[in-house]
Amino acid sequence: MLEFKTVRIEVPESCNVIFGMAHFIKTVEDLYEALVNAVPNIKFGIGFCESSGPCLVRHEGNDDELRRLAAEKAFEIACGHSFIIFIKNAYPINLLDKIKNVPEVCAIYAATANPLEIIIVETESGRGVVGVIDGLKSKGIEKEEDIRMRKEFLRKIGYKLK
Amino acid sequence: MLEFKTVRIEVPESCNVIFGMAHFIKTVEDLYEALVNAVPNIKFGIGFCESSGPCLVRHEGNDDELRRLAAEKAFEIACGHSFIIFIKNAYPINLLDKIKNVPEVCAIYAATANPLEIIIVETESGRGVVGVIDGLKSKGIEKEEDIRMRKEFLRKIGYKLK
Amino acid sequence: MLEFKTVRIEVPESCNVIFGMAHFIKTVEDLYEALVNAVPNIKFGIGFCESSGPCLVRHEGNDDELRRLAAEKAFEIACGHSFIIFIKNAYPINLLDKIKNVPEVCAIYAATANPLEIIIVETESGRGVVGVIDGLKSKGIEKEEDIRMRKEFLRKIGYKLK
Amino acid sequence: MLEFKTVRIEVPESCNVIFGMAHFIKTVEDLYEALVNAVPNIKFGIGFCESSGPCLVRHEGNDDELRRLAAEKAFEIACGHSFIIFIKNAYPINLLDKIKNVPEVCAIYAATANPLEIIIVETESGRGVVGVIDGLKSKGIEKEEDIRMRKEFLRKIGYKLK
Amino acid sequence: MLEFKTVRIEVPESCNVIFGMAHFIKTVEDLYEALVNAVPNIKFGIGFCESSGPCLVRHEGNDDELRRLAAEKAFEIACGHSFIIFIKNAYPINLLDKIKNVPEVCAIYAATANPLEIIIVETESGRGVVGVIDGLKSKGIEKEEDIRMRKEFLRKIGYKLK
Amino acid sequence: MLEFKTVRIEVPESCNVIFGMAHFIKTVEDLYEALVNAVPNIKFGIGFCESSGPCLVRHEGNDDELRRLAAEKAFEIACGHSFIIFIKNAYPINLLDKIKNVPEVCAIYAATANPLEIIIVETESGRGVVGVIDGLKSKGIEKEEDIRMRKEFLRKIGYKLK
Repeated sequence: MLEFKTVRIEVPESCNVIFGMAHFIKTVEDLYEALVNAVPNIKFGIGFCESSGPCLVRHEGNDDELRRLAAEKAFEIACGHSFIIFIKNAYPINLLDKIKNVPEVCAIYAATANPLEIIIVETESGRGVVGVIDGLKSKGIEKEEDIRMRKEFLRKIGYKLK
Repeated sequence: MLEFKTVRIEVPESCNVIFGMAHFIKTVEDLYEALVNAVPNIKFGIGFCESSGPCLVRHEGNDDELRRLAAEKAFEIACGHSFIIFIKNAYPINLLDKIKNVPEVCAIYAATANPLEIIIVETESGRGVVGVIDGLKSKGIEKEEDIRMRKEFLRKIGYKLK
Repeated sequence: MLEFKTVRIEVPESCNVIFGMAHFIKTVEDLYEALVNAVPNIKFGIGFCESSGPCLVRHEGNDDELRRLAAEKAFEIACGHSFIIFIKNAYPINLLDKIKNVPEVCAIYAATANPLEIIIVETESGRGVVGVIDGLKSKGIEKEEDIRMRKEFLRKIGYKLK
Repeated sequence: MLEFKTVRIEVPESCNVIFGMAHFIKTVEDLYEALVNAVPNIKFGIGFCESSGPCLVRHEGNDDELRRLAAEKAFEIACGHSFIIFIKNAYPINLLDKIKNVPEVCAIYAATANPLEIIIVETESGRGVVGVIDGLKSKGIEKEEDIRMRKEFLRKIGYKLK
Repeated sequence: MLEFKTVRIEVPESCNVIFGMAHFIKTVEDLYEALVNAVPNIKFGIGFCESSGPCLVRHEGNDDELRRLAAEKAFEIACGHSFIIFIKNAYPINLLDKIKNVPEVCAIYAATANPLEIIIVETESGRGVVGVIDGLKSKGIEKEEDIRMRKEFLRKIGYKLK
Repeated sequence: MLEFKTVRIEVPESCNVIFGMAHFIKTVEDLYEALVNAVPNIKFGIGFCESSGPCLVRHEGNDDELRRLAAEKAFEIACGHSFIIFIKNAYPINLLDKIKNVPEVCAIYAATANPLEIIIVETESGRGVVGVIDGLKSKGIEKEEDIRMRKEFLRKIGYKLK
């Protein structure tokens, strides 16, 4: 028997969420270190679904509220070896490379400030991630004027040089 | 309500397609730069599904036809923060590492010259990638003679030394 | 028509399994080299689902039993361009970074010693990976005492310094 | 004729310096982007020694004072294809990985807040980096008590978990 | 006794040279594979200074002339475990990341189309690389107009978007 | 005043040495973790030259003898922010990538089982690495028969497939 379910993640104001797959309980400590190394004043919480033995959600962080949120959301997701991270004072582009390099990390499903809907499959053996719905569905294809505005925006905020 | 759909990608003659997950509209510029850095005469088009605000398919490229194709296919896919790239004069092995290192990129689902079928889940909130069907289903296990031919082939085209 | 199926992977005693997505038949040789480079006495078998032409499961390894197992399981999975690796005398943290860097590799779905259930979608065109169920579903959130024991354990086995 | 010279770099209060080797004038734009991607409020200046054609020190940055300093110091160093970066509001551990991944970068000689003395060799053809003296010479080997204090310090500032 | 010497490398028309440090004779095969993976029509020659046992210059490549040149220049350099690569139909930015990831590679000293002067130290025990003089010494600091021209140039040749 | 000196490193039987440049005292803990992650039964010692404040050689490891040796050799080298690692039961190719990714690491000068001679420059301000002499000077260029034997050897020990 194979059943599909969804878990909704509302990302707190000024935060971003990163959702992925890893293995081994050392994941929470290694993700913790990767994140404190990334950005001087970053605040974050990490939840990771251990999937053998006691099968507890393992959690770390340097912000109590984000840590609690990550642990609770990881428990709601409950897919073996998945992890979820909430970050503040930092953006995913600052740290996705560091997370990709954590030796336990297999995959990153999403990094976003959008509401995230996680699609899960459940069988008798357990639960697994099927996919993520990250924000809204596309409404059109950008035209000349949209391209000009996009480029201008990225150059105004300093990400690209004029 | 959870509905599954499929989008078929036919890869143009002598091209390859790369399909993945990223975030942030800067993705199209960063992928553009990663690709021009990869192979001197590469031709490509990129489409990326912005999933907040105007929710437009953002596109870049250095080949009009591949750019148009990427934008249209991304719009057909319409899964928030996914991207699709069509390349010519280059192979995925030349540039997958560069794409993995783009700071916005989360995941690569497939890199192939095969027809690709993208399995999508749609809910009230949006659309997400469930998986990809990349070419055909396996027909058997290689035997001694197949192994010999495989090795010979890779050495004849110079990818491996004899 | 879109049908979901599952393949169960039982990981042999003292082994781990890594399951992912790549492309091109050179994958088996490149994964072979990445693994022999990783750990001096590693034993392993690799199976990779070629998905065009003869569509054979390509396999390599330095342990006959693990190679046979990898080939058979890859054939049971039969999803175009997916690969499966069984390792012994080594752990995923020793080598996931090396696998991520193999130029053909797109994604890693799981790395685990747990029983693995692979969720597959099949259509008229072929088969694709939908997700993995890696071990058991979470049973709770770790408390102070669990955290203390987790940290102690990781320090006792030498992964972290006291 | 082969002559050795030294250039002294005094690192401004609350800043760090990174000194390395790259090639091609695109280096300054690519380093610029790597750095703005690294840390949200980073301030920096980059100087790079072009070594053919006009042989100008190319410079970029988002802080006028650090940019001027980097340009002047690069000109004082004047070793073909070397670069120097001054950063504020960020630490080298936040961004060394991003600099290592910039496609033009060959080597990083030093990353430090210490006074830096750069040893240079000059011949009729040009100037090259021989080595760097980064801070002071070792005065002893840490003992039990020093080790305890080092670990305590790293755990107190949150870089490592207790 | 410590003696300094220099070796001059003239880079052939339309070629680039990459000079670095590695170890183990497998280096030549691994560099070969990294390079054929990088750019479809790349031509190259590699020379590597084995520094124990027979102490031969090991060489590989897919272009006889560049291979001969690399072997001869490596022999002239003769610094234990150093390597030199001449490439055609490709640029260093296409492949420096792939070379950095070769498991035997320690360092890259230079990547350039300029004449290169390698500074070497010799003692009774052997020879080592001290530094490289890559092209000419800086002649000035770029001014507004030079910056404008640099940006225009990089955008005209398509490396950066306007 | 600029003076050149040398430090000789004799690598113990069945060991390899890795010598490089980093910064910040966290280096020793991060290198420790990178190495325990690399190979299951690895034995090693690390010494790192702190170059401000107490300027102590910081050391870690999981083998007392190698740790003592690394600390003593680092103290003999005494070049600010340099590090030295002795490893047993593992080879540099197993772990150089992991060391390159340690966030404090700037450069790797050598990885070898050969006797190593480190060339150092000393001024009034401190000491810096100029270069390394790794084993012996090249004695010739390999010929057809040497190439054949090299390839055969690498295939016999299983590093490359036949």
